[in-house]
Amino acid sequence: MLDIVKKEHARIDSPSWAIERYLLQLFYHRLGRPNASFTLWDGHRQGKMSDVPTNLTIHNRRAFWRLLSKPELYFGEDYSQGMLSIEGGLLAFLEEIYLSRTQGFGKAISRNRKRRKLRPLYSIKYRKAKRNATHHYDVGNDFYRLWLDEEMVYTCAYFPQENLSIEQAQQAKMEHICRKLQLKAGETVFEAGCGWGALSLYMAKHYGVRVKAYNVSHAQIKEARKRARAEGLSDSIEFIEDDYRNIQGQCDVFVSVGMLEHVGPNNYTQLGEVIDRTLTAHGRGLIHNIAQNQPDPTSPWIQKYIFPDGYCPTLREMMDIFEPTDFSIADLENLRLHYAMTLQHWLTRFEEHKDEIATMYDENFVRMWRLYLCGSIANFTTGNMQLYQVLFQRPQLADLPITRDHLYR
Amino acid sequence: MLDIVKKEHARIDSPSWAIERYLLQLFYHRLGRPNASFTLWDGHRQGKMSDVPTNLTIHNRRAFWRLLSKPELYFGEDYSQGMLSIEGGLLAFLEEIYLSRTQGFGKAISRNRKRRKLRPLYSIKYRKAKRNATHHYDVGNDFYRLWLDEEMVYTCAYFPQENLSIEQAQQAKMEHICRKLQLKAGETVFEAGCGWGALSLYMAKHYGVRVKAYNVSHAQIKEARKRARAEGLSDSIEFIEDDYRNIQGQCDVFVSVGMLEHVGPNNYTQLGEVIDRTLTAHGRGLIHNIAQNQPDPTSPWIQKYIFPDGYCPTLREMMDIFEPTDFSIADLENLRLHYAMTLQHWLTRFEEHKDEIATMYDENFVRMWRLYLCGSIANFTTGNMQLYQVLFQRPQLADLPITRDHLYR
Repeated sequence: MLDIVKKEHARIDSPSWAIERYLLQLFYHRLGRPNASFTLWDGHRQGKMSDVPTNLTIHNRRAFWRLLSKPELYFGEDYSQGMLSIEGGLLAFLEEIYLSRTQGFGKAISRNRKRRKLRPLYSIKYRKAKRNATHHYDVGNDFYRLWLDEEMVYTCAYFPQENLSIEQAQQAKMEHICRKLQLKAGETVFEAGCGWGALSLYMAKHYGVRVKAYNVSHAQIKEARKRARAEGLSDSIEFIEDDYRNIQGQCDVFVSVGMLEHVGPNNYTQLGEVIDRTLTAHGRGLIHNIAQNQPDPTSPWIQKYIFPDGYCPTLREMMDIFEPTDFSIADLENLRLHYAMTLQHWLTRFEEHKDEIATMYDENFVRMWRLYLCGSIANFTTGNMQLYQVLFQRPQLADLPITRDHLYR
Repeated sequence: MLDIVKKEHARIDSPSWAIERYLLQLFYHRLGRPNASFTLWDGHRQGKMSDVPTNLTIHNRRAFWRLLSKPELYFGEDYSQGMLSIEGGLLAFLEEIYLSRTQGFGKAISRNRKRRKLRPLYSIKYRKAKRNATHHYDVGNDFYRLWLDEEMVYTCAYFPQENLSIEQAQQAKMEHICRKLQLKAGETVFEAGCGWGALSLYMAKHYGVRVKAYNVSHAQIKEARKRARAEGLSDSIEFIEDDYRNIQGQCDVFVSVGMLEHVGPNNYTQLGEVIDRTLTAHGRGLIHNIAQNQPDPTSPWIQKYIFPDGYCPTLREMMDIFEPTDFSIADLENLRLHYAMTLQHWLTRFEEHKDEIATMYDENFVRMWRLYLCGSIANFTTGNMQLYQVLFQRPQLADLPITRDHLYR
């Protein structure tokens, strides 16, 4: 497949036709007239230049028609395969595109677009969940080790000071979560979707709690167990290669960081039931996830190449977790800009290792992953995406502090 | 009406029948077997005693059958009129009742009950809104002055230290809101539902902003204007006797404290449109309101005697304000226990002035108002009710501080 496309690119197309130039103009207007330009393979140009000028070059006729027909899928595919290239910075270009969709002229179009019904999401069964996790998280521990922090925390960090390193910010995030949850030594914590185990290890080490941590990714669980052994925490933490729906037993605290995006809206009520069934009468919990303001389907490119069945819910949709089970929302913090900063750290390290990664995979993989990281940054900086930490508890409880100043002492 | 009932009370009923004693038992079980007892007019008793024993005495047959038939309405009516009395503390009794409904045996019943559809709420038109406000807020400024703080702030206060006076806690609440909103001198603030004007005055005085404040209560607006003149702030604040739907112009900040409970869920989308229409592109806002975890209709007694058309929304319902207009939720704080403390302060002052109030109105009014205050405390302590402060902003904005520690310095 890749080879065919590359051959295509090598072919020199005839100059653009009048209809193509007209369609490019329409396409530019539909995007909300962003501060960016669009250049066809023959040099024909459309659009305007901002102070920091960015330009998308469409290298051949095939990529142009693909872009017009299904931009949400083919932009990503053809960028990854070098059929599209961007001058002036991928991130700056994406930010312009996202902003123009949500402001001024683009807002009217965008609102209209938002009225589309969300395609009904089928339930994500256990096997599917496992396959989805494998697709992304089993790409290779060695790969993730190249650009994540030392402990490989693959979720939004927390920057109480802007100049923290990514290592420090991930530690600060874990501390922030533990404080919110008011962990006490000897308590039992269940973690759903534990990644490579950093939070479980942090909680056991610094707060003396017992942890049962679940994850369907084989590569991650294996690594997490190795770490627990290395840190002498195997007695406090049980890493279980299983789905959140199979969580058994009782816990004082339920925590899930960056898993909800894989759960699927049709399963939120079930997730709520799992939490309700496992949490004691004095239980409390925290869910940390990417969210959006309005229910917009996940981009088909992200669905196909990055996160199969991934979906970032609205707060309204998330209430399916908390409302039927009568949980009280104690606190909600939006850390959107912290995720942009986190991703920027990852992107910098990623670029530092891009040759290594190209050797491990190939150039197209590097371009694909770069687009995913830059697209995510742009989603957070322009406010398309939110990052919520939702702290919840049984409604009758009065155990949590009545103000939040203990988080900031 | 009151006289008729009083005559009824004077009548001595024949001893309770077997069927009545059996129905009392059923009633007690339906309540979830609370730690409280129930005594009929002839001394027959049902229920159990907790460590702090409370008892409800039903003084005659008529009150008993009314209680069975529609407890949500007639408990309040007959308590107000002295047909029901409580030994061991009204508040303690109500807390037991609320707790038993949400725990153990009562939970199953309560959940079932929660499945009832919320009755469709008709839209509250302007005239109705005005009549509703008059019913409650125009009871008399002299009355409210007896038991609210000096500035007459009739919403949840904020207790950064538990031993604050109600005056200090209301000041702390206003400061907390201003900090969340990051008010800057010279900015324009619109306040929807301004009560007696305390927050508007605070913002103008301490933050140098210009305020346009709306309220449909004539008595409140009159008092607010008087205060603005007295404080020499008439140039900075315009108090407007009008509905939030008629807000005109542009503002940097939109704030509404304790009004949403009167808006009605069918009007939330419209409220969101008003905010969207008035807020500048760099605008932000805060809504402070009582809420609940699950959509339960307002008690018919509260509807009839206290807050006509009052309704405390769920967070899901509140998203009708923010979601269609693409606002980002920046922060949500739940101050439930602060409201219990606030109400406790009000109740203490109310009881200190009960003879005065009985002279102004009558004994039944005192009992009605006591029930409303105690019932509200119990709703917050037992977690039936929540108090949300929701901070929101335009999605693209990055103006608010990225952490919340500035609130706690």
